[in-house]
Amino acid sequence: MLNKIKNPKDLKKISVAELPALCAEIRQALIQKISTNGGHLAPNLGVVELTTALHYVFNAPVDQIVFDVSHQTYVHKMLTGRATAFTDPKHYQDVNGFANPAESPYDLFTLGHTSTALSLACGLAKARDLQKQKHHVITIIGDGSLSGGQAYEALNNIAEQGGNNIIIVNDNEMSIAENHGGYYRNLELLRTTNGQSENNFFRALGLDYVYEPNGNDVASLIKTLNQVKDCTAPTVVHVHTLKGCGYQPAENNPEMFHYTAPFDINTGKHSTTGDNDNYTDITYQYLAERMQSDRKLVTITSATPNPTGFNAERRKQAGQQFVDVGIAEEHAVAYAAGLAKGGAHPVYEVQGSFLQRSFDQLHQDLALDNNPATLLVFGDHIHGMGGSTHNGFYDIIQLGNIPNLLYLAPISKQSYLQMLDWALEQTTHSVAIRVPDAVIDDPLKVKKFTLQARTINKGEKVAIIAVGSAFPLATKVMHNLQAKGLNPTLIDPVCVSTLDEKILDSLTKNHELVVTLEEGALAGGFGQKVAAYYGDKNVKVHNFGFSQGLTQDFEPASFLRQNGFTAANITKYILTHC
Amino acid sequence: MLNKIKNPKDLKKISVAELPALCAEIRQALIQKISTNGGHLAPNLGVVELTTALHYVFNAPVDQIVFDVSHQTYVHKMLTGRATAFTDPKHYQDVNGFANPAESPYDLFTLGHTSTALSLACGLAKARDLQKQKHHVITIIGDGSLSGGQAYEALNNIAEQGGNNIIIVNDNEMSIAENHGGYYRNLELLRTTNGQSENNFFRALGLDYVYEPNGNDVASLIKTLNQVKDCTAPTVVHVHTLKGCGYQPAENNPEMFHYTAPFDINTGKHSTTGDNDNYTDITYQYLAERMQSDRKLVTITSATPNPTGFNAERRKQAGQQFVDVGIAEEHAVAYAAGLAKGGAHPVYEVQGSFLQRSFDQLHQDLALDNNPATLLVFGDHIHGMGGSTHNGFYDIIQLGNIPNLLYLAPISKQSYLQMLDWALEQTTHSVAIRVPDAVIDDPLKVKKFTLQARTINKGEKVAIIAVGSAFPLATKVMHNLQAKGLNPTLIDPVCVSTLDEKILDSLTKNHELVVTLEEGALAGGFGQKVAAYYGDKNVKVHNFGFSQGLTQDFEPASFLRQNGFTAANITKYILTHC
Repeated sequence: MLNKIKNPKDLKKISVAELPALCAEIRQALIQKISTNGGHLAPNLGVVELTTALHYVFNAPVDQIVFDVSHQTYVHKMLTGRATAFTDPKHYQDVNGFANPAESPYDLFTLGHTSTALSLACGLAKARDLQKQKHHVITIIGDGSLSGGQAYEALNNIAEQGGNNIIIVNDNEMSIAENHGGYYRNLELLRTTNGQSENNFFRALGLDYVYEPNGNDVASLIKTLNQVKDCTAPTVVHVHTLKGCGYQPAENNPEMFHYTAPFDINTGKHSTTGDNDNYTDITYQYLAERMQSDRKLVTITSATPNPTGFNAERRKQAGQQFVDVGIAEEHAVAYAAGLAKGGAHPVYEVQGSFLQRSFDQLHQDLALDNNPATLLVFGDHIHGMGGSTHNGFYDIIQLGNIPNLLYLAPISKQSYLQMLDWALEQTTHSVAIRVPDAVIDDPLKVKKFTLQARTINKGEKVAIIAVGSAFPLATKVMHNLQAKGLNPTLIDPVCVSTLDEKILDSLTKNHELVVTLEEGALAGGFGQKVAAYYGDKNVKVHNFGFSQGLTQDFEPASFLRQNGFTAANITKYILTHC
Repeated sequence: MLNKIKNPKDLKKISVAELPALCAEIRQALIQKISTNGGHLAPNLGVVELTTALHYVFNAPVDQIVFDVSHQTYVHKMLTGRATAFTDPKHYQDVNGFANPAESPYDLFTLGHTSTALSLACGLAKARDLQKQKHHVITIIGDGSLSGGQAYEALNNIAEQGGNNIIIVNDNEMSIAENHGGYYRNLELLRTTNGQSENNFFRALGLDYVYEPNGNDVASLIKTLNQVKDCTAPTVVHVHTLKGCGYQPAENNPEMFHYTAPFDINTGKHSTTGDNDNYTDITYQYLAERMQSDRKLVTITSATPNPTGFNAERRKQAGQQFVDVGIAEEHAVAYAAGLAKGGAHPVYEVQGSFLQRSFDQLHQDLALDNNPATLLVFGDHIHGMGGSTHNGFYDIIQLGNIPNLLYLAPISKQSYLQMLDWALEQTTHSVAIRVPDAVIDDPLKVKKFTLQARTINKGEKVAIIAVGSAFPLATKVMHNLQAKGLNPTLIDPVCVSTLDEKILDSLTKNHELVVTLEEGALAGGFGQKVAAYYGDKNVKVHNFGFSQGLTQDFEPASFLRQNGFTAANITKYILTHC
């Protein structure tokens, strides 16, 4: 059936009685494709019936459907002309994993961060009303995303704005990991009372409310959606679904199957990834051990415990010393500031891309008073990026340009661990650490962290300053140049939020060119600080890094080439200019 | 009585029966000082009794009291050793208008942005519990601030964390202007049911709840606070107060007296400020007129309608075309994106300092898809700044470094209006406009906006590139240099998010030095982009702007001098280097 559906009109030709068979087909395609390609399995399995019912009842793209985060749009893509991208291995790469307006008019926004869809839908509804149009506006948002402050801000505005605005709360009782926050008790109360509890978070905000307990029963969903379809006031449809529904291993372990690498369909087992040294393990080992001797150490996550390796069992083990604040990056940073002020030793681990939520809190709550919290920023290197919605390009813009905040970029495992020691023992600075990519040994045998740039190789004429994860590339360039008879100075800047002016000044003596390397946006980044410092001095500067922009389906190696971020290109530049 | 109170211990020596007299004295001091000095009058008048009761019942600074925003800490300052700063005109300048740890151990954080205190207090409480300490943690947060998403994120975490955590919701039924958002209906329901409604926003989040209707009755407050003092689970004390209480003009018009310039105590009238041309009036006139012919134009504010001149009457007049989303900057940006996507013409006006809340939304929701919304960024010049918590230093870092987003910096009234026209008529770019300070006429007689840098004066040897509000200073420098026989090129870059490479390249022919001027942070700013562009070319660059950091009680002229941002210093630099 699935391959015959070219658009939602084709779907509407199918009888309600036949839809469960279609859903089974969709589910099968999801499991098949993701088992070989990887992807967001459990969230999509949970919304097979819900998405089918939505397209059955509403008339997209005239009716506007916005999927929060949009990692759960695989089924939506299948039903809006993109089925072959899930049924035919030759076409698996035709679509990416998130909503994408470039792919289809059924995808209204490029989405990837959570808790934004209600704001967007509120704007769409207002635009409709101003233009006296009559279509429906529908948001699908997960229970997890509703802990994000922006979603709450939007609910408030939606309630006041009024009009037709349908909010599907897809309650699968999960975020990526388990949910955290007081409002989840209310969701539970609503589930256990079949939506009848007088105390109702959504009604408290002035929204109408309907409970649908059978979120994986397509006929029941269609009936409920038809009831609310023409509502004249904003209405929450609280739908209870099962994350991972229909695939036992995902039902059993929805956290592992939230986003999954390829796996064996029969067993649900992932191929072993080997025992490569990586910063997730290194970080977990460090924190878990240190927690034992320092009872004031608290590791904080905002609903993404994976980068630090705190799986369910380890979280339990850490007890009061591990806090998941829910999807709440703004709160997380200020919470860490409060903990630090109170004498505790907070460590907030976060993906750089998501930390964009906290620019104001980093500036105002954390750094203005030098509250000594430690932030571990993951994914801000080319291999940690997942397209325009999940890239860590802009961390140095934020963390490198705020007064007081020290943003450190280790190049090696030893350097990283020494920075952690130092950050947790000092009490006068807010510190963030840019966790690198490849685990390498430090080229210097240093025992302790100091806040000074480090000269790794003393040369002449040209100096290469390489930020953190760009260090292996800089080493290659150095070897290339040495092979050509040019011995460059190689510098690890250690800190990207301040310049070590002493070292920079010393370079003016016997260097004519300084080249900077950073895996991040050039605009507003570290290299531009160096260029400005040398602006009126007799040293030329060239910055290597990433020009603005990144597509959703970029490929690291070719992206690096496009940006001239290769050993060959950098070597050539230096040889031409020296 | 007031001057005898050196700390809260002295306060506790006064009998409850005598406290109303003390409160009257405090109120009188507030009105007297603010009438001559300006300041946050109405918020402080509202919390005279509440603050007195808090210090009477709790034992600060062992007990930790966090004031959200902290513009309502004047009374707190009086009761914690700083009374003379309010009673003795010679000492009026001893304190600033916000909580300030440098002033007193009773002030825990430097605060100025809203909705953060609950996060900070949640961190303090967790630090207390980890260390098995026993003190109380108390937050005072206004009803207005509770529309901010961060406050909601914190309430969720507080509920889950448990333990002694007292949340005073100071409900004066106002933000700066009237409140907006669905949850205010619940506050109203709670007030009208004397806190007895089953449907209760706070209880829905899992918090205990007490209602105190007599928020300006000190004895009643003391009784209630004593009841909740030793709570073992987080407890909301919903206190109903009167904004402006005890001064009739402020009670009648709390919006005008939220923050007030000096006024006549007897009449409540402000001295007339003259009819100087200013961007508030210019913006209002433009938007109000354009709304008439363009029914798709919507002006959005996040609870600060003042910069665009939309007072209560004008908001009413604008009807559906003016939306106050509450204190919700994250939502506001994404809402504008949704409106733009839906075909409307949104204009979001905001203080640059508060827009720091929206870095992620600017990047992800607005600019990634080029949604054609227009942002008007106010206060990002030296005279629009109010210390470290209210400065617009970091706007170029955000708005100037995000892919796709165009950040325009007009130098003149005509330029500003042409940019507005252009921004509202085009449909392919997200546009932000940095509203300047002094209203000047454009030096060129151009009829229409074009996205290119403009050469204002063609000279040689040195070029000055002046961003928006720095243009008058650049003109002075030009005249200084011309008097010395050096005719500099003067350039208006128009856009600070991209470089006009054609003009920059043309300068290399007969210029050896380029000087950039911007009223904003140097690190990550516009000038550094220019320095990087010329990094390996034969043109020297020097950036003038602000070094990192700003104190709460800075004085513009001396701050500019410290940063070398004066005509004399810049002239001297150029003459020395050319």
